[in-house]
Amino acid sequence: MFEAILENVRKKTPLVHAITNYVTVNDCANIALACGGSPIMADDGGEVEEITSICQALVVNIGTLNARTVESMILAGKKANALNHPVVLDPVGAGASALRTDTVHRLLKEVRFSVIRGNMSEMKAVAGSGAATKGVDADLKDAVTDENLHEAIRFAKELSRATQAVIAITGAIDLVADEKKVYLVRNGHPLMSKITGTGCMLSEVVGCYCGANPDKILEATAAAVCAMGLCGELAFERMRKTEGGTGSLRTYLMDAMSSMSPSLLNGGMRIETR
Amino acid sequence: MFEAILENVRKKTPLVHAITNYVTVNDCANIALACGGSPIMADDGGEVEEITSICQALVVNIGTLNARTVESMILAGKKANALNHPVVLDPVGAGASALRTDTVHRLLKEVRFSVIRGNMSEMKAVAGSGAATKGVDADLKDAVTDENLHEAIRFAKELSRATQAVIAITGAIDLVADEKKVYLVRNGHPLMSKITGTGCMLSEVVGCYCGANPDKILEATAAAVCAMGLCGELAFERMRKTEGGTGSLRTYLMDAMSSMSPSLLNGGMRIETR
Amino acid sequence: MFEAILENVRKKTPLVHAITNYVTVNDCANIALACGGSPIMADDGGEVEEITSICQALVVNIGTLNARTVESMILAGKKANALNHPVVLDPVGAGASALRTDTVHRLLKEVRFSVIRGNMSEMKAVAGSGAATKGVDADLKDAVTDENLHEAIRFAKELSRATQAVIAITGAIDLVADEKKVYLVRNGHPLMSKITGTGCMLSEVVGCYCGANPDKILEATAAAVCAMGLCGELAFERMRKTEGGTGSLRTYLMDAMSSMSPSLLNGGMRIETR
Repeated sequence: MFEAILENVRKKTPLVHAITNYVTVNDCANIALACGGSPIMADDGGEVEEITSICQALVVNIGTLNARTVESMILAGKKANALNHPVVLDPVGAGASALRTDTVHRLLKEVRFSVIRGNMSEMKAVAGSGAATKGVDADLKDAVTDENLHEAIRFAKELSRATQAVIAITGAIDLVADEKKVYLVRNGHPLMSKITGTGCMLSEVVGCYCGANPDKILEATAAAVCAMGLCGELAFERMRKTEGGTGSLRTYLMDAMSSMSPSLLNGGMRIETR
Repeated sequence: MFEAILENVRKKTPLVHAITNYVTVNDCANIALACGGSPIMADDGGEVEEITSICQALVVNIGTLNARTVESMILAGKKANALNHPVVLDPVGAGASALRTDTVHRLLKEVRFSVIRGNMSEMKAVAGSGAATKGVDADLKDAVTDENLHEAIRFAKELSRATQAVIAITGAIDLVADEKKVYLVRNGHPLMSKITGTGCMLSEVVGCYCGANPDKILEATAAAVCAMGLCGELAFERMRKTEGGTGSLRTYLMDAMSSMSPSLLNGGMRIETR
Repeated sequence: MFEAILENVRKKTPLVHAITNYVTVNDCANIALACGGSPIMADDGGEVEEITSICQALVVNIGTLNARTVESMILAGKKANALNHPVVLDPVGAGASALRTDTVHRLLKEVRFSVIRGNMSEMKAVAGSGAATKGVDADLKDAVTDENLHEAIRFAKELSRATQAVIAITGAIDLVADEKKVYLVRNGHPLMSKITGTGCMLSEVVGCYCGANPDKILEATAAAVCAMGLCGELAFERMRKTEGGTGSLRTYLMDAMSSMSPSLLNGGMRIETR
């Protein structure tokens, strides 16, 4: 189903510019390489427009934002918009501080995002940020379960309409939605949350997949979500066999992404549309 | 002996705010997760007070300090003090530059620390920083051995009295002291010094243990020191068996921390009081 | 041939100051420890001169440069020059933005570098930066092959003459040259390019080797290039046997560097002079 998406990443080796946090940046760079892309990290206002111009996609991650880098995010985002490059937003910790929520608000006003990926708590802060999100239900619980799935889907579709971005809400069940269509993905393993940056890494993979498939943003995002979840499952199995812990899990996650193939992805993904 | 300390960490999943260096920050975040905590890294002056308010502990690490982040450390430290959260100081490289020594001096004047953890060389710089440390013997050798143990213990207790913090001096023999009591810990392996950031990681674990046990700072710190040392021993054994090197050692250290249990800790720790 | 070079690193444990990027800094610190050195990362203008003074070498890497850190690079570089410490430049991404190319130009004017290490594309940007590089042929293809080896060697020697630095151009074939002599190194494995920062790590190892062998910069650089390439080969073999991916490759690379011995290096290096 997503074979061509993955093949395009391997074939095109999209150059992806990331303005991201210093906590998980190394894992983001390595997983970009592992999935078939090529990462460039650059955050100085004096070069971000030029750097993003030579790339095929931009990932903006506010994990350790500061006054200087927020300006760089906006400069790079506007340039990427002008060049029609896919732009991915990872609103890390939105809702945890006014600075983060306000920055997301400002980013949404000044930059057009192709994809916004976060957990439900972050996405509710995105929805509540005033970015034309009237009518969006932000009273959802923070975990998507089979019980609140209907409301979560409505939330995702409405947030997509309001932001004009593909919305990826990740958790036990992942939702990838535009205004009309939603993919439900049931790949992944709970222990992935015990490695820092699995969310950031996924956003980087989304950047690579979208950079290589700029005309199929919804499908590329769903494929990236499936691939990451499947890698988590494979990594967990291997960790269990070697009696390792979360250090090994992290290494095996990277191994799995570098070994992912279209047929492996096709055989392992657990996805449905609604 | 420390079973309840560790059980509290696993049960409460304390949120720990760290303002730390960009060299070892990823390992700090991963070891916080591995030991049972939940890390948040944030260093912008515009959000550190808010971020630290939603946490249960704060870790301040000056490993790659700069003018901007030092102000954030002070803002966050004062807020954590106001909220009575445990605050851990890791004075990385104190004594190596005037900026570091002066910053430690300033931090000690403006923030009340619950725990200060460093090697003997750093702790001597802390003692010499003028923070009411008259009478503190700073002529000790930089390694704590059985030969100078008596003087080292006196130094640790006096530094605790002067700073009103629990003092953790780590090396071949680790000391964890308040004014009246000292724990000697003989866990650990020399090869741990060949992985960058084992000290920073320990300070992060101390933050998690104290965040979950705010009324038992001395015991929580001693338990964290034992746990880290024991993880180093377990990791070394596994490295030896797999004929690996320091890359594997680092992975296995994380594995060991994520697999640590109260009974494992109890059986493996080598601790005495003086 | 390079046994004494490596023995000196292990014996002297050179302290190496790095002002480097936040993407690969942890791997740089760990590989410095693995190869026998001791890393210090510090980038605040208020301390870089003092920090570099207590070290035996300085590594300047512009991977995530910004206005603040560029000034620190110049301060530290001038101090290292005054103290006659070896200074290594890694011009990451030179040519990809005006800021990077201009910064390299400025660094070359204000600081005397002992070694410049980059890939051919970066080194061409270094050559074209106006630093007295008239006559340097910058029309080379970006990969050094047996077909363009003659021109690449001439380019490296001329760039060495113009910059008065040892030039290390790494790729499928590595060149390490001064004005008169060039080493060709054929160690390494293509998959190393799928781990972020293998170039940065090599520059850090060059810093350690030069810090312990300040009177043999050309040989120390060539030895570091051989060691890194050989570690890549050993890591790849082990990855293949364990059916791992790039996550394992990275761990095994670090393992190999920490296990490298003079005899292993001597037996495995594939080097010739021209």
